[in-house]
Order: sequence, then structure tokens, then C-alpha cells
Amino acid sequence: MDIADWRRKIDEVDEQLVRLLNERTKAALAIGELKKSAAMAIYEPGREKAVFEHVFAANPGPLPNELLQLIYERIIDVMRTLQAKDRD
Amino acid sequence: MDIADWRRKIDEVDEQLVRLLNERTKAALAIGELKKSAAMAIYEPGREKAVFEHVFAANPGPLPNELLQLIYERIIDVMRTLQAKDRD
Repeated sequence: MDIADWRRKIDEVDEQLVRLLNERTKAALAIGELKKSAAMAIYEPGREKAVFEHVFAANPGPLPNELLQLIYERIIDVMRTLQAKDRD
Repeated sequence: MDIADWRRKIDEVDEQLVRLLNERTKAALAIGELKKSAAMAIYEPGREKAVFEHVFAANPGPLPNELLQLIYERIIDVMRTLQAKDRD
């Protein structure tokens, strides 16, 4: 496979990633609504720790856990931004 | 659905995200190898622009493009780190 072939593969993977990131967003917004109704805090460090442990356990590699964590920190940060916006 | 139900949904989505992020990593490492053999630069701003355009076009929402971009900037940054490590 040449560079163009691998890039087509990446484009296909990206389409699935975008779909799943939107699925995750819908779930995060639903949780945000439930927390708003219950006057619960958006930030829950215990849940974040559980998310990292779950993705590390599910990680087959070659992506190392420390780099997977960097990606997940950004995903979680974005989801928290959306939940906070919804509370304004 | 209560918060625990939505979190189970997020955990399932995360398992698929981790699998796809590793698929993307394999493709990025393969491209890194091909570029190394051809003495090509790792950073190609034109390709990055194309990746953003592709994911924006594939984005059904509710995740806004500007937040999707934040996540993809981190993904691309991580992939570039791995390609550079492979070149050391």
C-alpha cells in the first residue's frame, strides 16, 4: 500500500470516529441534562479516572496509553465544555 | 435512561473509539515508514487541511465543528509524535 492508499484508509476510519464522537456527545449532553435537573456538579474526578482505566484496559496498541490519555483528556474537556454551555 | 445507563453507553462507544484510534495509529505509522524511506517531511499542512475538511463534511452533529477540530488537533499531534519517535 502506498501513502494514498493509507490516507484513504485513514479517511474511512475518520468517518467512523466522527460518528462515534457524536454518539458520545449525545450521551454526554443527556448526562449533563440529568445532572442539571439534579443540581449535580459537571466535574466528577472519580468518573474521569474510571474512563481512563476503561480505555487503557480496552487498548490493544500500538497507540501507547500515555498518548491515548492525551487524546481522551481533550475529548473529556470538549464534552465538559458542551455540558457547561448547556447550563448557561 | 439514568446517568448509569448513559455511562454504560459511553463505555461501549469508548471501546470502539479506542479500537479505531489504534487503526488510525497503524495507518499513520505505515505512512511514517513510507515517508522515512522517501526522506519526506512528517508535517504536511495541506494534508492536515484535507483531514479537517473531511471530518467537518462527515460531521452530523451535535458536536460542533470547532470542538471536533480541537479533538482532531490533538489526534493529529499524537500521530505526528509517534511518527517522529519512529524516526529517531
